[in-house]
Formats: sequence, structure tokens, C-alpha cells
Amino acid sequence: MRGNTFGRIFQIHTYGESHGAGIGVIVDGCPAGYTITREEIQTELDRRRPGQSSLTTDRQEADPVQILSGMLDDVTTGTPIHMFIPNKDARSKDYGPLAQLYRPSHADFTWQNKFGIRDPRGGGRSSARETAARVAAGAIARILLVQEGVAIHSWVTQVGPIAMKHQPEHPDRSLIDRHPVRCPDPETAREMNDYITQLKEAGDSTGGVIMTRVTGCPPGWGEPVFDKLHADLGKAILSINACKGFEIGSGFEGVAWKGSEHNDQFVDTAQGIRTTTNHSGGIQGGISNGMPIEFRAAFKPVATIRKEQQTVDKDGHSVQFSGTGRHDPCVVPRAVPIIEAMTALVLADHFLRQKTSKR
Amino acid sequence: MRGNTFGRIFQIHTYGESHGAGIGVIVDGCPAGYTITREEIQTELDRRRPGQSSLTTDRQEADPVQILSGMLDDVTTGTPIHMFIPNKDARSKDYGPLAQLYRPSHADFTWQNKFGIRDPRGGGRSSARETAARVAAGAIARILLVQEGVAIHSWVTQVGPIAMKHQPEHPDRSLIDRHPVRCPDPETAREMNDYITQLKEAGDSTGGVIMTRVTGCPPGWGEPVFDKLHADLGKAILSINACKGFEIGSGFEGVAWKGSEHNDQFVDTAQGIRTTTNHSGGIQGGISNGMPIEFRAAFKPVATIRKEQQTVDKDGHSVQFSGTGRHDPCVVPRAVPIIEAMTALVLADHFLRQKTSKR
Amino acid sequence: MRGNTFGRIFQIHTYGESHGAGIGVIVDGCPAGYTITREEIQTELDRRRPGQSSLTTDRQEADPVQILSGMLDDVTTGTPIHMFIPNKDARSKDYGPLAQLYRPSHADFTWQNKFGIRDPRGGGRSSARETAARVAAGAIARILLVQEGVAIHSWVTQVGPIAMKHQPEHPDRSLIDRHPVRCPDPETAREMNDYITQLKEAGDSTGGVIMTRVTGCPPGWGEPVFDKLHADLGKAILSINACKGFEIGSGFEGVAWKGSEHNDQFVDTAQGIRTTTNHSGGIQGGISNGMPIEFRAAFKPVATIRKEQQTVDKDGHSVQFSGTGRHDPCVVPRAVPIIEAMTALVLADHFLRQKTSKR
Amino acid sequence: MRGNTFGRIFQIHTYGESHGAGIGVIVDGCPAGYTITREEIQTELDRRRPGQSSLTTDRQEADPVQILSGMLDDVTTGTPIHMFIPNKDARSKDYGPLAQLYRPSHADFTWQNKFGIRDPRGGGRSSARETAARVAAGAIARILLVQEGVAIHSWVTQVGPIAMKHQPEHPDRSLIDRHPVRCPDPETAREMNDYITQLKEAGDSTGGVIMTRVTGCPPGWGEPVFDKLHADLGKAILSINACKGFEIGSGFEGVAWKGSEHNDQFVDTAQGIRTTTNHSGGIQGGISNGMPIEFRAAFKPVATIRKEQQTVDKDGHSVQFSGTGRHDPCVVPRAVPIIEAMTALVLADHFLRQKTSKR
Repeated sequence: MRGNTFGRIFQIHTYGESHGAGIGVIVDGCPAGYTITREEIQTELDRRRPGQSSLTTDRQEADPVQILSGMLDDVTTGTPIHMFIPNKDARSKDYGPLAQLYRPSHADFTWQNKFGIRDPRGGGRSSARETAARVAAGAIARILLVQEGVAIHSWVTQVGPIAMKHQPEHPDRSLIDRHPVRCPDPETAREMNDYITQLKEAGDSTGGVIMTRVTGCPPGWGEPVFDKLHADLGKAILSINACKGFEIGSGFEGVAWKGSEHNDQFVDTAQGIRTTTNHSGGIQGGISNGMPIEFRAAFKPVATIRKEQQTVDKDGHSVQFSGTGRHDPCVVPRAVPIIEAMTALVLADHFLRQKTSKR
Repeated sequence: MRGNTFGRIFQIHTYGESHGAGIGVIVDGCPAGYTITREEIQTELDRRRPGQSSLTTDRQEADPVQILSGMLDDVTTGTPIHMFIPNKDARSKDYGPLAQLYRPSHADFTWQNKFGIRDPRGGGRSSARETAARVAAGAIARILLVQEGVAIHSWVTQVGPIAMKHQPEHPDRSLIDRHPVRCPDPETAREMNDYITQLKEAGDSTGGVIMTRVTGCPPGWGEPVFDKLHADLGKAILSINACKGFEIGSGFEGVAWKGSEHNDQFVDTAQGIRTTTNHSGGIQGGISNGMPIEFRAAFKPVATIRKEQQTVDKDGHSVQFSGTGRHDPCVVPRAVPIIEAMTALVLADHFLRQKTSKR
Repeated sequence: MRGNTFGRIFQIHTYGESHGAGIGVIVDGCPAGYTITREEIQTELDRRRPGQSSLTTDRQEADPVQILSGMLDDVTTGTPIHMFIPNKDARSKDYGPLAQLYRPSHADFTWQNKFGIRDPRGGGRSSARETAARVAAGAIARILLVQEGVAIHSWVTQVGPIAMKHQPEHPDRSLIDRHPVRCPDPETAREMNDYITQLKEAGDSTGGVIMTRVTGCPPGWGEPVFDKLHADLGKAILSINACKGFEIGSGFEGVAWKGSEHNDQFVDTAQGIRTTTNHSGGIQGGISNGMPIEFRAAFKPVATIRKEQQTVDKDGHSVQFSGTGRHDPCVVPRAVPIIEAMTALVLADHFLRQKTSKR
Repeated sequence: MRGNTFGRIFQIHTYGESHGAGIGVIVDGCPAGYTITREEIQTELDRRRPGQSSLTTDRQEADPVQILSGMLDDVTTGTPIHMFIPNKDARSKDYGPLAQLYRPSHADFTWQNKFGIRDPRGGGRSSARETAARVAAGAIARILLVQEGVAIHSWVTQVGPIAMKHQPEHPDRSLIDRHPVRCPDPETAREMNDYITQLKEAGDSTGGVIMTRVTGCPPGWGEPVFDKLHADLGKAILSINACKGFEIGSGFEGVAWKGSEHNDQFVDTAQGIRTTTNHSGGIQGGISNGMPIEFRAAFKPVATIRKEQQTVDKDGHSVQFSGTGRHDPCVVPRAVPIIEAMTALVLADHFLRQKTSKR
């Protein structure tokens, strides 16, 4: 009821605060018999953690994950897999004065209204540190998908006003991770890098857009009415901190087209029936159609900036405030593995759901 | 598991096919003691039904709703409220040949892959007729919200390439419904109308964008991690047929701003602590902050067009096809009450969830 | 949240009041591709309906079920199957004065406290008429089980103080239904019949015990911790009106045994590994072990009796009361198909759940 | 889907194996603002742990609970409360040969069939050690109930053939815990003690019955159809290892009574409307009626005994086997706090559910 659970069959439960003992996740519903090592999970976590480059926060969270149940000699046993990531580099004193004021565009004010109490140390559970639990869980979901031939790639296609002109035909991780900004086009990546560096110096921040392409998803995944595959993806992505928009296939641009231009024509191919175009973004009627699933997510500028801002304290008194913690000027490079993880969680769940759809 | 249920406490279950006996919905979890008449529910349904104007399909579905349980003298009793809308004007013969082919950008192909069987009459359960059940349920959700002072307004802000320049400060239903296109700006409405009429004559179709504003929502609704209020709204809206995108507050446009421009500054007001701007769209950290909730939804061009198209039959053979049924050239005017209904369902559910958040 | 839903994958939602328009059920999650006719469902309902013999109430409810969605030419399509049973023989005037008082050992008082409002006509939704919806849904669940070779038989083993001495080795429906009391031993059945007839004349009532045996259930169904197969069966059976106890295998009697007597010894057989005794009742560690599943359910005496009783009205004033409606003096014969239905619902659900347990 | 979650609003998720890193539980849905110390939780755990007396196993599990999230200065914050109990005294070598055979009346065989893999160390997750997580969670549930004036007491009323004659009018924990067997009647407790000691020496085991009484529960808790309060209690109790039966109020004995004897007569009292007798066991129509809730649970003899037994190995070959681990000869004394915990979890959940039942 408090929204700390995600998924129906492949289900995860997360917990933990930014500056408590640690954060963690229970993966419940992973079928028995899949092989995965701690190192594979750690690799995914390492892509998310801060301090990977000068573009991201300087916090050196090592994020070493512990697997505390559900595995026997690197094989899943069908019981809940609990993964725990201790908080190492907490420095909770950094946030002392924050307990008294509401940071602009943060969750301090709303959280206080919701629960009547909040953990002010580092934003408590509203901190993006919570997303590490999602990435750990996503690493396990990914194993199921790899076995089915499904591959997920996300990359940064826009930072502030700087956008890629053409999307890569065959994105792969080595291409995407070559530059810390996680844009697969080297020149655009450099421009994005310069822009972020400039904002960092100015004590300001910006937003961006992440593109995702899923290949190898067979036709038939997704449920037709409320749990349409893109509706579940949309919720998954919009639940990531700072995400303000989600669009699939032709998205907002496609609204201006005509039906005769937009419709994807079916043809028979060696791989089975496919479409000549993919304005649907791989999903029709909420169910995958065998084409690549393509969607884009918008992230707002990071709310914590060094520049001085006006706000109020908990009694409504006006106060000056400038962020002093260690924060990214742009969240999108680190959001790439989080989006991939959430996508994997949605797809693994629908893969299992599909096992019960017909006799 | 099959995605016919929506909501957690205020929960609905829908059923029914386009050309079967009828469609319906069980509203389960509405608290006892709310008053609502059949006529109030019918009023909402009448806004959704086709045949309201020359812009929408000519089918004359009367959609008279029957309330079969859960009410005593127009008062909710706490038991499941079952509403049934019989299918009157089915004409299932219209769709005979469709059983053999996959209509472009429809759910025929994916549905067949999912279940191995499909009801080809009028698209079966993939038909937008299913959304009538949502509207009926939304009418009941709305009653809870009205009691809390919450008001929901959606309107058409774009049709094809024609978009409103300025959004109304105080939208109301009489303004929105004055023109069948449901755009509150009379001049833009006329332009939209002309464009749709032109497409109808050409046997083509288009898409559009719907804007929604929720006022009166108190701070504290929404759950902080996976069930963020805008994530649940996003899923709700994306689950509506033909919806391809969702954005809240500054959305995709806001990604290019700087943090110092985007952050909403808190101030103390007579109504309590509020923000001077509303780029957050009324939700921060997934929880309502007391400001208007504002989001936009993108709808693709209607897939059924009279123009001839190429597709394949179930054996993969190439066939010519042109839509002969009665269909809207643009779905957005009728999508307005559906979006309002889904919004009401999400908010009523989070209103009840919030009752259990603190001691 | 209001408890009108049962099951996780094979899931049902029921609605309806005793004297409203009718009662019904949505079966959601039945896989596509199973064949079942309306007549097969009606056959199960006919076993439950009152007026089958002089032992049961004289109400002649025909209970003709309507299938309103989810089927195409008697084949399940994977969409929600809605079944509706109109209320024909309501005679709501019989219950007029009941609106003012709390019948002893009925749900009038508790319902009023829960919801602040109640439908007094025939007990509203607290009436056992609600169980017809379970029986209709169970008929569909049964189809899945038959395909897997699973058979369910329940029978009356005790009425008041009269109990069967030996349980049948191979119960079958023709044997059970031969006598209206649904006890497969002819002599005991006659004694039970005489006892019930005697109570009916005296305006009194009694209870009884129902035994259930499930054969053909393969090893591996049931979930090990909270959703143990017998825990889910227990909840299912205890949720039937008037049920006060549930025991599996050796049950309450087995507590006095020694472990060395109680343990079921494993042996290898032509059918696979089985046990020489079955004190476990076919379930070990919450998971089926391939032996027959055997459990017993206790039903209290029917609360509505013609004999005069003392109670209070809604203002707490003492009043005399005697039941005037048409009611069974003993509920167990009619509870037999309800128990079979609930058992089928639990097993069909766990059958589908098991499809996702391993790679 | 794998049954490691319990509850709807006050919800718990458990994980962990007997001989892995530890076991734990996330309590999700506890409202913000309740005060509870680690010591209060530990006190409950100490009642469950083995090694409390010569009657229970000699294993000295200290079971020190760690609270890793969801609390701020001993106050719940509304976020998930994660509690972890490390495994200290594992000695996994004790169980080596067990990997190759199926212990009689254990979950080895069924678990293997379910998942195709099992953790043989100490029974893995099928071990009763899992119940420590329930007790920790129940300690938090109890805090909510104490605030509402609800008190829960369980005690041992039967061990093997030795049963209490009269149940205590006002059970309290000091009375119950005075003797390690947890029977509040001193003389019966001694007899039970002698019987257990005797079985221990003989390398055998026995079962027992636990009685529970809940006082202070207001009328109105419980949901009327599938989630009847006693159905949810029944499932909760039956999900405890070794439980084979559950009965409420008059239970199996009451079936032989007449309705005129069994009905509970309503009267007006200073506390409100109550009943003169309590054969209903405090629940009518699935909803609490303000009277004490009374139920009994049957536990089978402990399956692990030192006496030699016959069984098969995983290849079906006949083998001799005798339990060598440290095990209780009778589980009921330690099951007392587990039953109290499960009862608290059910009631806390229904307390929160009731908050949304009426306007």
C-alpha cells in the first residue's frame, strides 16, 4: 500500500534510507534454476554509482552488494533473494540544517505532509540512492531475459538543449559507456560534456532525455487493458526520481501525423510477421508485436544546485538556501542503468505472466 | 494477472467485448455512505459515447448503464457496485472478413499471439468500447473527490498540427463542452473542427494532445517510491487506447532548462505553504504538494481509416484492406471524459491509501 | 480491500445481494483455450440451489446462469468471464421487520458496525446466496483440473451427532448424490435424514461435517511459507458461511499421536515416490506430495430457526424474534458443491502459480 | 506469487534460509508515528527462540534482531522497516547426508518437486527458523493493537493426550510463561512436562493444541466475503509449520448442537450491544462483534525424531534414517509466540483496512 513493491510475479520489495544502515531489495518470484554471480550484479551497480567521472557527484560510494538469501552456489532456488548494500560514506552531518527547511523541488515538504515525520538525513528514502536497489534487482531480471534472447539498451540522447541527430541502429553497451555522458555519438557526447562541466562550475544543473531500445522481445507480452506493456513501462520509468515524461514509438510527435502515414504495415518475413515501419514502438494494443520496443524518458534539471535560492522553513518563514552536498549537475548519465533495470523488471514480469495466458 | 483490474483500495474490475452481450465494471472498495444517482453516472457516459457530433463516429450507442448491486436508495453500501452496459447496436456482420486479416496498427496480430484465439467481432475486448466501463467507474470515484474539494478538468489542446496557444486559467466543463471538439478556445476549436472534417472526407485520421488540470488536491497524496502519484497517473493514462505519451509539469520541454530556472520556490500563503511557479506539475517526490496537478497526454492518429492499406492475413499472405466500420477520424474529443475518469480513479485510490499512512 | 476477490492468477471477483438484481462473478485469469458449456456450469449450480429436496429450503430458485463475456463458441478467450445469476424469487417483503433488529448469530449487527449501513433484504450480501457465484466460478476452475487429472469429491460425514463410521475408498458423485443428504453411506444417510426432518418439524436446526478428498494432484503445488496449500484451502473453506473449523490429514486427532506413529514413510512406487500412510493429508511443508489431499470442515447449526428467540433491536431494546423465512434446517448437504468449488478455485490457482516456479 | 508476503495494508515480506546468512522481514505499511524499541521486539523473539528450557531444542540461537530501516529515534516513519536476524549457530555440517534423502513428513520431497532444487542445509527455508521473522513483525503489529486496546493471549491447552479441563478466564503472559510448557494450569503443565521429557528420552515426539483469546477488539473488523476475519486468521495460523487444524468458537464440537442452543443472544450492556454466550467466537459473518475472539490450533507431532525410520533417497532407494540434529520433542510451547504474532498481523491489517470502509 505504501508503494515499495513492484511487479506481479517477478516482484521486488525495496527498503532503506540514504543515511541509515543501508538499502536493499528482496527479489521474490524469480524462478528456480537461473545462474547469476554476485559479480554480474555488482557490474550493474557500478554503472549506477556516483563518482564515476567528473560529470557525476564526487561521492565515492563503493556500493558492494551482499546476497543474503535465495541462492545456492550461484543458482536461484525459487526463494526470496535478498540483496543488501550497506551505506558506507554517509557523512550525515552535511545535512543537519536541512531538517528545518523545505528544499525547492525536493520531496521534503510533501513527505512531511504525507507522514507527519521525515528522515532529513540526505533526504531519507526520497534520495535517489534508493534506485541502487532497483539496479541490483534488475540485474537478476536481466538473466531471465537474456535466456529468451531479449536485449535492453538505453542511452542519453539529449542533455539540456544538446540533442543527438540520429539514433544508432545497433546500440551496444561498449559504445554507450565509451564516454561518461553515455551518449553513443562521440561528438555530441563531447558537447554534452562541455555543457555539463560549464553548469557545474556555475553551480547550476540541467536535465535530459534517455532513449531505450529493446530487441528480441517476442510477440505476445503485455496484458491488453490496464496492464498494457507500455503502460507498465511508463509507470516503471516515471517512478524514477526526476522523470517528468514518457513516450513510446511516435510519442508526442506522432499526434500531428495522419493515420495513413502512421499505421505500421504488416509483412511476412523470415522471422515471422513483422511491420515495415515501427511508429507503434514495438507494442500494439498493449502487447509486444515482435518489433523493437522503443521509448524515451524526460528528466528534469537536478533540483539540488549550489546557486542560492529562496525557500521557507517548516514554520513558513522565508529563508535563503544553497545546496552544499555532493550532487550531479545532470542526472541522465547515471539514470541510464536505472532505466535499463526498470525495463528489465517490467519485461521479466510480463514474460512470467505470459506463461499463464493460454492452455 | 490479466490486467483487467485497476486500483488498490478503490479498485475496479472490467469485463466485456465490443460485440458480446455488453461491457461492465465492478467498483470494489468504494466506502459506504456516499450518495450518487444513476443519472450522474449516465451523464459521464453520455460524454464518452460516439455519435455526439459529426466529428465522431455515427454509431448511436445509447449506453444506458444499469446498476445491479452495491447501492441502496442511491447510497453506496460498501459492497461491490456492479454496472452493466448492454451492447445494443452491435451489427457484428460488419466485421466478418476481419477475422482473417491483421489490421495495421490494431491489436489483432498481438492478441492472436498472446492468447492463440481472439474474438474478431469489432476487435473484441481490444475495442475502445471497453473504456465506457472506466468512465462509469470514474463517475463514482469523482463523488469521493468532490467531497474533498478536488476538481478534474481535461480538454483538447492539440489536434493534428493545430495547437492552442494559451491554456485557460480556470477551465470548466461548460467551456470545454461548448464545442464538440472539446477545445475551450473557440477559434482553435473551429480550426480543429475544419481539419477533422477534411480528414474524414479524405478517409484519413489524425491524433491530438489532451491537457488535464486537477485543482484542490491537498498535499500528501501519492506514495514515494514505485507508486508515485504521477507514475500511477502515467500508467492510468497510457493504458487508454491510442495513448503514446504522458508528461507532467514541465515534461519534455523542461529538460532543456537550468535547475535555477526550473526549481519551484516555496512561499507561505493563506492556503498554507505553496510554490510561486508550478514546473513540478503539482507533484514532488511522487507526492502531491497542494498546487494544481497538470499533465498532458499524446494520442496517435486513429488506426482505422477508409483509405486502402496493405497488410497480411493470418497465413502471412499479402492483402488489401480498407476500414469500412463506423470510426472516429480523431479520438481526442471522446478521450477527454476517459482521461478525467482515469484521473479520478487514481486520485480516489490515493485518497483512501492516505488514510492509512500515519497514526 | 473489501474481500470480494479470491485467487492470485486464477482470480474471481463476486458481487451482488440476496434481494437485489442478482449476483454474479467475474472469472479473470482463466487461460485461453479451455472448452466449457453453459450447461456444465448450470449443472454445478443446480447442485447448490435450494429446493432440491424436503431437507432443504422450499425456495425454488432456478438460478439460471448467464455467460456475458470471455467465451467464444464455448471456448475461453483469456478475457474476463462474467457470469450473472438474476434474482428471480426474491419476495423481499418477507424480511421487512428484520431491518429493525439484529438476528442472533447473523451478520446484521456486525455489518451495521462495519459499514454504518446495511441492506436488510434477506441479509443483503451476507446471505449464503452469494455462494452461488463461487459455485459458478468453481465449475470453470474444475475444467482446468480435469485436464490435469485432478478430481475433487466432498461428502457429508456428520450431521448433528450422527457420523459415518468409515469413509469411502473411492467416492464418486453418483454415490454421494444418491441421497439428498449427500452422505455416501445409505444407512447413515437415512439416519441423518430422519434427524434433519425431526429438527425441521421442531423449528430447530443443526450443523455437520464435510469430508473432502482430492485425487490426482501431482507433487509440487502450493507455496512454502504463507501460501501453503492447506493454508489457502483453509481460508477458502473457512470463508464459506457457517464454517467454524478446518483440519487436514490427521487434524485435531493427530495431536495426541507420537511422531513415530504419525510420520508418513516414503516408498518408491510405479507412480513415483509416495507414502505408505497419509496422515499428512497429501500436503507436506505446504506443498502437495502426490497423495490424496484430505480435509474436513465443520459447519455450525443454521442460525435461522422458527423457534422463538430473544434479541435486541438497533436501539438496544429487547425484542422477541422467530425466523419466518424459508431456510434449511441443516446447511451441509448444500455446502458440498460449495466446498468442491472453493477447492477447485484454490487448486486451479496453484496449478497456474506452479507454471512460474522454475526455469 | 511465491507466498513470502502476508497482509494487505500492514504487509510483511520474509526471506532467508535456516543455514544461510540469516533471516529477515520487511514490515511495509506500518503507519508513521508509532513508537517501538528494539528491546520490545527482542523480547518477543526471545520467547520463540530454542534453548529456553530442557523441553525445547538445545540450540542456543541468540537471535539478536537488527533494525536496518524505517525507524527514526524509535518512531516509525512510514517507510519499510527491515529487520534482520543473522544466523549465528549454523553448524551446517550436521545436515550433510540429508541432501541425499527425503526425511519422512518433512518438506524435502515436495520442495524438490516444486523447484527442482533445494537448499538441504537444515531444511533451508522450510525450517521453522523462518517463523522468527513473523515474530519480529508481529511485535510491531502488536503496538498498533495495544493503542486500540486489543490484547492477544495464546497458551498450550493440550500436549499429546494431556489436556486442560478449564480455560482461564483472564489469561495473562506471566501466568502462561510461568512454566516453560506455556500451559497456565500448573498441575496440567507439570503433567505435560513429564510427558514431553519421557518422549525426549525415547527419541520420540508429540503434538498439541494451542488456544488463543483476543480481547478488546471492537465490532466491525473483518471483511464479509472471502476475507472473513476468521478465514484470514485460519490461513495465518495454518501457515505455521506443523499446524494441521484450526477452529473458532464452538468449532468441530458445535456441529452436533442445535441452533436453539448454539445461537448467541444479543443484549444491551454498558459496553454496547454484546452477546450472552460466545459460541460464535467473537466473529459473526466474518466480522468481529465485540466479544472475545477465541480459536484453537492443532499441531502435529514433530517430524524429526531420533528413532530409526524407513524412507527413500532421491533415486527412490530404500534407506534407514534417524534424526540427529537438535530438535524439540514438542513444538507447541514455542508455537505460542508465533500464533500470537500471526494473530497480531491479521488484526493490525484489518484495523487499517477498516479505516477505509465508510465515508
